[in-house]
Amino acid sequence: MLRTHNNGELRIANVNEIVTLCGWVQRTRDKGGMIWIDLRDRYGITQLMLEEGKTPKEAIETARSLGREFVISVTGTVVERLSKNDKLPTGDIEVKVTELSILNPAKLPPFLIEDETDGGDDIRMKYRYLDLRRNPVRQNLILRHKMAQEVRSYLDKQGFIEVETPVLIKSTPEGARDFVVPSRMNPGEFYALPQSPQTFKQLLMVSGFDRYFQIVKCFRDEDLRADRQPEFTQIDCEMSFIEQEDILQMFEGLIRQLFQNLKGLEINEISRMTYAHAMKYYGSDKPDIRFGMEFYELKSEEVDLTSGKNFPVFDAASVVVGINAKGCAEYTRKQADELTDFVKRPQIGAKGLIYVRYNADGSIKSSVDKFYSEEDLKKWIEAANAQPGDLLLILCGDGDKPRKQLNELRLEMGNRLGLRNPNEYSVHWVVDFPLLEHSEEENRWFAMHHPFTSPKPEDIEFLKSGDLGKIRANAYDMVINGVEVGGGSIRIFQKDLQAKMFETLGFSDEEAKHQFGFLMDAFEYGAPPHGGLAFGFDRLCSLFGGSDSIRDFIAFPKNNSGRDVMIDSPSTIDAKQLDELKIKTIV
Amino acid sequence: MLRTHNNGELRIANVNEIVTLCGWVQRTRDKGGMIWIDLRDRYGITQLMLEEGKTPKEAIETARSLGREFVISVTGTVVERLSKNDKLPTGDIEVKVTELSILNPAKLPPFLIEDETDGGDDIRMKYRYLDLRRNPVRQNLILRHKMAQEVRSYLDKQGFIEVETPVLIKSTPEGARDFVVPSRMNPGEFYALPQSPQTFKQLLMVSGFDRYFQIVKCFRDEDLRADRQPEFTQIDCEMSFIEQEDILQMFEGLIRQLFQNLKGLEINEISRMTYAHAMKYYGSDKPDIRFGMEFYELKSEEVDLTSGKNFPVFDAASVVVGINAKGCAEYTRKQADELTDFVKRPQIGAKGLIYVRYNADGSIKSSVDKFYSEEDLKKWIEAANAQPGDLLLILCGDGDKPRKQLNELRLEMGNRLGLRNPNEYSVHWVVDFPLLEHSEEENRWFAMHHPFTSPKPEDIEFLKSGDLGKIRANAYDMVINGVEVGGGSIRIFQKDLQAKMFETLGFSDEEAKHQFGFLMDAFEYGAPPHGGLAFGFDRLCSLFGGSDSIRDFIAFPKNNSGRDVMIDSPSTIDAKQLDELKIKTIV
Repeated sequence: MLRTHNNGELRIANVNEIVTLCGWVQRTRDKGGMIWIDLRDRYGITQLMLEEGKTPKEAIETARSLGREFVISVTGTVVERLSKNDKLPTGDIEVKVTELSILNPAKLPPFLIEDETDGGDDIRMKYRYLDLRRNPVRQNLILRHKMAQEVRSYLDKQGFIEVETPVLIKSTPEGARDFVVPSRMNPGEFYALPQSPQTFKQLLMVSGFDRYFQIVKCFRDEDLRADRQPEFTQIDCEMSFIEQEDILQMFEGLIRQLFQNLKGLEINEISRMTYAHAMKYYGSDKPDIRFGMEFYELKSEEVDLTSGKNFPVFDAASVVVGINAKGCAEYTRKQADELTDFVKRPQIGAKGLIYVRYNADGSIKSSVDKFYSEEDLKKWIEAANAQPGDLLLILCGDGDKPRKQLNELRLEMGNRLGLRNPNEYSVHWVVDFPLLEHSEEENRWFAMHHPFTSPKPEDIEFLKSGDLGKIRANAYDMVINGVEVGGGSIRIFQKDLQAKMFETLGFSDEEAKHQFGFLMDAFEYGAPPHGGLAFGFDRLCSLFGGSDSIRDFIAFPKNNSGRDVMIDSPSTIDAKQLDELKIKTIV
Repeated sequence: MLRTHNNGELRIANVNEIVTLCGWVQRTRDKGGMIWIDLRDRYGITQLMLEEGKTPKEAIETARSLGREFVISVTGTVVERLSKNDKLPTGDIEVKVTELSILNPAKLPPFLIEDETDGGDDIRMKYRYLDLRRNPVRQNLILRHKMAQEVRSYLDKQGFIEVETPVLIKSTPEGARDFVVPSRMNPGEFYALPQSPQTFKQLLMVSGFDRYFQIVKCFRDEDLRADRQPEFTQIDCEMSFIEQEDILQMFEGLIRQLFQNLKGLEINEISRMTYAHAMKYYGSDKPDIRFGMEFYELKSEEVDLTSGKNFPVFDAASVVVGINAKGCAEYTRKQADELTDFVKRPQIGAKGLIYVRYNADGSIKSSVDKFYSEEDLKKWIEAANAQPGDLLLILCGDGDKPRKQLNELRLEMGNRLGLRNPNEYSVHWVVDFPLLEHSEEENRWFAMHHPFTSPKPEDIEFLKSGDLGKIRANAYDMVINGVEVGGGSIRIFQKDLQAKMFETLGFSDEEAKHQFGFLMDAFEYGAPPHGGLAFGFDRLCSLFGGSDSIRDFIAFPKNNSGRDVMIDSPSTIDAKQLDELKIKTIV
């Protein structure tokens, strides 16, 4: 070792020891007679001290030549500090230098290597290796490391076997776009990178592996929205001879252990909510239930408290829904306008926002006073279960639209009212997802989860009767604080049902066979009942780290154009490589 | 859970319990009045029993309809067996069935699902999911799982941080051929799949991560020799502020722990041998040192015990080397001919084999008696340190060739003499590899390890003087039983030296900058001294599993044409996909 200790470990007990330390120069303070250097490494910071007249001259000279981020080695004696620094674990001591040598000089970094940096996003990505020196970024990756170890430890103890599935697999047109890899040895043919190890983990169940897991890279060639990465990591799991409830409990256990061991938090009840309930009361399949503010209906298939009053906007809508913003009756006109602007933003797309103030004195004032009497509005207040001082916020429209818009408003109100504390965690399941969803655009049905998800046994009749929208799946998502962190399903394990499913999704027999023949074959040789789930590992890390951005938890992320600006990739390749691969670019 | 117990856990203590089991039908024995079924899952086999007249009729009927590999569920009572089976952990009990249902029927598998199967390689690969049901194959993957957990546990405890490096990176022409991935969002440009995370792990050292590891998939588009896979797994590690000796010790510790915890074996001394020594005495950079049989020289730059006797073959050779096959003087003519045939095989390519029998009675008989007197041969015997009863086997030629051929013969003799016991493990390091090797074909120098390997400080002068063949590297391989399981080096961390290295390898400044500019840049911002290594994880597993084939330790391997015959990949892709990627195949 080039060092006897790291920069985080020296304590008062080490006083009088002769030590050798290595690291980066965080800062130097030259007070003439005395020079102090903060020496940094992954483990911490240790203060070095040199004294004119006592420290050897060469060391003093070298110290004066140091710049920020120089890599140095020092030898010296540990001494007790005169003025201690209780913010540093090593703050009781400093090292009186006797030898100092530069292992590698450093150019001035293009941004400050401090917790708070002056570097913008672009420059920090280009010099990601310097950004990674910053404590908060490193801590994110250390958290990721710890979480990976905890996940494996839990699953290993539960009898799961880690199996590596292949990265060079076969392209399937269903779902998102694949990245493909031309095969030199098989000209004209391509591998694909996996969007998930789905079929392989199901084959492992057919093989009798019983419990499988993997922390695995997956790939999707999608147009990148903010915070999507073309390569991402999943905690991928599958179990045999289980029912949905077994899976929910197994992975509740995992999440509880992660919170316990990584954050010292006990997670209480992990509730279950049906998809139908979530959509009806939150307008979202991943509601944040740290706060209530459930939707109430003023007009729907079941209720109508709005018609017959000649308010054309509501009359034209099939759905009128609202939330109750508790204690917000005092909102100024400006605040109300802000909310209206919020819901009218193109990303949300509402035409307007109706409000009803239920003032503290019991009086009622609304933006639709022209059409609705106080008596009418009292019915609304009752439906909203509002108290004096509350503010009703109401949207209208057709189908799911107003609910989805109201979901955004609900979350915004949660933020404004401080109801979404990032240090408070609420974990729950959303279950009973629809099996299929209809695409108006392509006029066909798609699997909401994937084509291997099993319908609920009691809903299989709808598959036969063609009532496809009514079929619920044995599918579930885990939601933490309004973020979907994982999801899965009980799988189809019968060949006939799987064939029926492919047919329903518009696969010809030939297509199904070409793409998934091996899985259909496998189902004929004794497939057990099985199911599983996958967690988004990047997302889970960012949630535990209290951040919205997965990029902060990936060592070398790509930007929104799928570029790694540090290594400058993707890039052109040699003509010779293209020739060998028997492909041509047509740009 | 669809079961109360698995098929490996019921014992005499469970007698009288009512249990539900699930699994695959291994075999059925129908003796008329009694039916026994062996029910199998990953955990073991449990015997089920049905009795005419006592077991419900439907269960009996269902039992009679079962075929091999049917998936069933049974409920019954645990009873003590009349005739116990001490080969099965569950052999003291059986389950008296009261209910039996078929969860999934199975077609007759195309080969026997037994430890010894009748299936050939091709059929087992096509139905890999059935092959994986076989106990030996599953045990291989369970060993792999355990090894992965042990590796991570050791490295985690030693302060290594697991960091995931990207899979979509940049193509570099140096080294083996890359797999590439066309970028749809950046038409005409490509990602490459990593051959190793080499540059990223070095950047992590520049970032101050200090100790990094990852068990990671790597990719090489090479023409596949037997037992090479296009995707393979490495245990990849890097450390900062260390010297070579620190790395050797750290990973000796890892290997010792793996042997201890996975095989219950204490590994004794782990010796170090220079590359020069290994080549001189074993003709190999990965000698199997479970047995001696070192080479001796009869003619070389230092010695000549052959010239001036008019034996034209030796006179024309610059090198004459031999091994001493202890106790083999009695070899028959046929055995001697076999050895001659062995070394003359095209893969080895020797022109012939000279032998000297040192008979038990002290007499000497050789295949070159015409040229060499007993006195001459006694000198050879002395050089070989042979005893009466031994047999000298001698090859000649120029340069390294005869040594490499003799290495093959030595290993063959080791096999024949039973000196290579697969259950005896010898671990050692080969160190001081040459930095560069010259390619006659391309008339240029190549990095023997990779371009980031540092020369030994005392040999740097040869880099300047152009004496390139003399430069030794701070590079090391770990060898177990003649298999290279891992290797690495201390890296260059100074920009100037790295630039000099690229220049020596024939990179123009521009090429070096284009391909590795980010690394050269990084070296300017404070790079610490660092080094590391990588183990071939597939190979390590196969070695621990006592197998020669890595394929047996990969869940879904590819064949020698890089095909996965189970999923039939690679395959053609849609014209639409090619269009989107802006590429054309030219087959």
